[in-house]
Amino acid sequence: MTSAIVGLGVTEVGRVFGRTAPQYAADAVRAAVVDAGLTLDHVDGLLFGNGRSGGLTPLLQRDLGLVNLTLLSEVGAFGASAIAMVQYASLAIEAGMASVVVCAWGDAPLREGTSAGASYQREMLAGFLSVAAAAGVTGANARYALAAQRHMQHYGTTSEQLGAVAVAQRAWAAGNPLAQHRLPITIEDHQASRMIVEPLHLLDCCLVSNGGVAVVVTSTERARDLRRPPAFVWGWAQAHPGTLPERGSRFGLETGAAVAGPAAMRKAGITTSDVDVCEIYDCYSYTVVVTLEDYGFCKKGEGGAFAASGALAPGGSLPTNTGGGQLSSFYLWGMTPLSEAVVQVRGDGGDRQALRHDVVLVSGNGGVLDYHATLVLGREPR
Amino acid sequence: MTSAIVGLGVTEVGRVFGRTAPQYAADAVRAAVVDAGLTLDHVDGLLFGNGRSGGLTPLLQRDLGLVNLTLLSEVGAFGASAIAMVQYASLAIEAGMASVVVCAWGDAPLREGTSAGASYQREMLAGFLSVAAAAGVTGANARYALAAQRHMQHYGTTSEQLGAVAVAQRAWAAGNPLAQHRLPITIEDHQASRMIVEPLHLLDCCLVSNGGVAVVVTSTERARDLRRPPAFVWGWAQAHPGTLPERGSRFGLETGAAVAGPAAMRKAGITTSDVDVCEIYDCYSYTVVVTLEDYGFCKKGEGGAFAASGALAPGGSLPTNTGGGQLSSFYLWGMTPLSEAVVQVRGDGGDRQALRHDVVLVSGNGGVLDYHATLVLGREPR
Repeated sequence: MTSAIVGLGVTEVGRVFGRTAPQYAADAVRAAVVDAGLTLDHVDGLLFGNGRSGGLTPLLQRDLGLVNLTLLSEVGAFGASAIAMVQYASLAIEAGMASVVVCAWGDAPLREGTSAGASYQREMLAGFLSVAAAAGVTGANARYALAAQRHMQHYGTTSEQLGAVAVAQRAWAAGNPLAQHRLPITIEDHQASRMIVEPLHLLDCCLVSNGGVAVVVTSTERARDLRRPPAFVWGWAQAHPGTLPERGSRFGLETGAAVAGPAAMRKAGITTSDVDVCEIYDCYSYTVVVTLEDYGFCKKGEGGAFAASGALAPGGSLPTNTGGGQLSSFYLWGMTPLSEAVVQVRGDGGDRQALRHDVVLVSGNGGVLDYHATLVLGREPR
Repeated sequence: MTSAIVGLGVTEVGRVFGRTAPQYAADAVRAAVVDAGLTLDHVDGLLFGNGRSGGLTPLLQRDLGLVNLTLLSEVGAFGASAIAMVQYASLAIEAGMASVVVCAWGDAPLREGTSAGASYQREMLAGFLSVAAAAGVTGANARYALAAQRHMQHYGTTSEQLGAVAVAQRAWAAGNPLAQHRLPITIEDHQASRMIVEPLHLLDCCLVSNGGVAVVVTSTERARDLRRPPAFVWGWAQAHPGTLPERGSRFGLETGAAVAGPAAMRKAGITTSDVDVCEIYDCYSYTVVVTLEDYGFCKKGEGGAFAASGALAPGGSLPTNTGGGQLSSFYLWGMTPLSEAVVQVRGDGGDRQALRHDVVLVSGNGGVLDYHATLVLGREPR
């Protein structure tokens, strides 16, 4: 591969107010460009991941005053957008369409004085229609609950095993100054936390956050001359198995990661044993379990036991979601795992830095596991 | 380049009802795949141009029952989305991410019993904020009117010259069975048509249409074995000079076409003299004038005279918008010029077929000329 992530910008995140989604994204872009040791004048490509609101790219472009762009697009693939943007940026750079591409993301679902749940309910209702909605399955929580339930019934995965994911990630979050929740939790805390939709407890569910993240992508060659250590792009793949009805018997048991993971690692020339750190899209604890299985870090159906073994936690064999993930740090869709992957590759993790960080695997999923993208980042060029 | 457009699907268009935007897109995809001599099982990439409504790609994927996708994304670049999708598809095919990529687009702004203007007003208001809105400049009409006005004041372009674009395109539309308006018009008709926002008459403005269009993109190699003559991708470029305030003194006088056009032709290894047919994004007659100037088909400021000379009309030296364009056939954003380009390259134009059709230049613009993309298609591989 011939590209690298050379800049990272993360705004204040969480229950922060006063900006729109594109304004958070613009702030993140400015920070990312400075981080890279570049200025906005160098930027000739801008990709904007659309979260809940499409059509806002012109506001972002205007805010940044970018007038010499040769690549400009909104990219919409839900939780897979972050990786999809890095892919598109890399392809465009390789084709000579642009040389410095910023991949930006912003979101502002939270309103002062309203709960996270209330902020989301209205938005999600629009997306899920028909029979499922008539049956009361109106939001992401309910649909992921069905998926998790299926995994538990088929493989014997337990709520405590899902809880082990949440506990491990909270332990990592203790070392992340940006994390919304840093106080340790136990399995008992997880079990005692409010049931959202059976079998998902509150502590199985991601946070809701305002904020923005951006990364700067450029060629491997140019990356060497920049300010910060590059995160080299080693490989990627996407796999999108479709929404619930089409997937039939594999729903909840397997995701696009089973296709995209091996493909991305093949492209990167690695196997699971080469991976030092995983940053797995964790809208729910359950997605970490099923994705790690699909990637082949453990046998199919044994993801729960793998988590319960302590493998994912600080000191474990496979440091995973080392910033606390979407469960404990902040929920900016695929930008949460992507940004933490850059932090880890660079060795910028401070108290949460993984000892070995030569190869970091990042995942993104969206819809109800109908979108999936995998990205492999490395500390050295390949 | 190593890709080609091998399938085209266009649904019924115009004041047709009963389907949502993604349903029109799905119908177009099915038609495009049949046209290519393929089945949906061959499709492993799906790009969806978001018009007014983002987040609908899962509905499209579900409608089509596609479960083996390795590329899936919504692409948002307004009127430049169509070309941006073909570019992204081509890059992905070249990189081995996918082999058969469908680029789909659908829109359904019209409601039975309401006028086109009423259907649009609500949608557009959301996009244009601040000072301009407070001054009553709330929609695309008003903002393009400012741009056209500037061109007229600076270069002496006249309303009659803009009318020549509309008259020429209507003459082409007579040969297009899909066109919403096929009866000839004169400059007098244009002048007598209702003023929308000075200087734009009704006949300077695009239609409003429901419907869908899709194209199938695959590798040059595979294209040779398929059912229909391929439209080979020869070159492309994008240039996005930003929204009104940033462009300052060049606003209205010059667009991203001045950068992207020469770049795309350079990539294709051609000059303007090699271009047989132009399909120019014509949300307004004015954009045809300014874009042709920017591309270098006439001198800067002489686009109006060029149109008035009859060059663009049937029998003229540069057949342009040969299906009637968005002014007379249908308004499905960048898919209108792209689909007609495929028709022309293939020689499928029937009564409107241009005599020479070896090289077709396609443009897409969006926002208020802040987005621009250029695509060169050829009848032979290059």
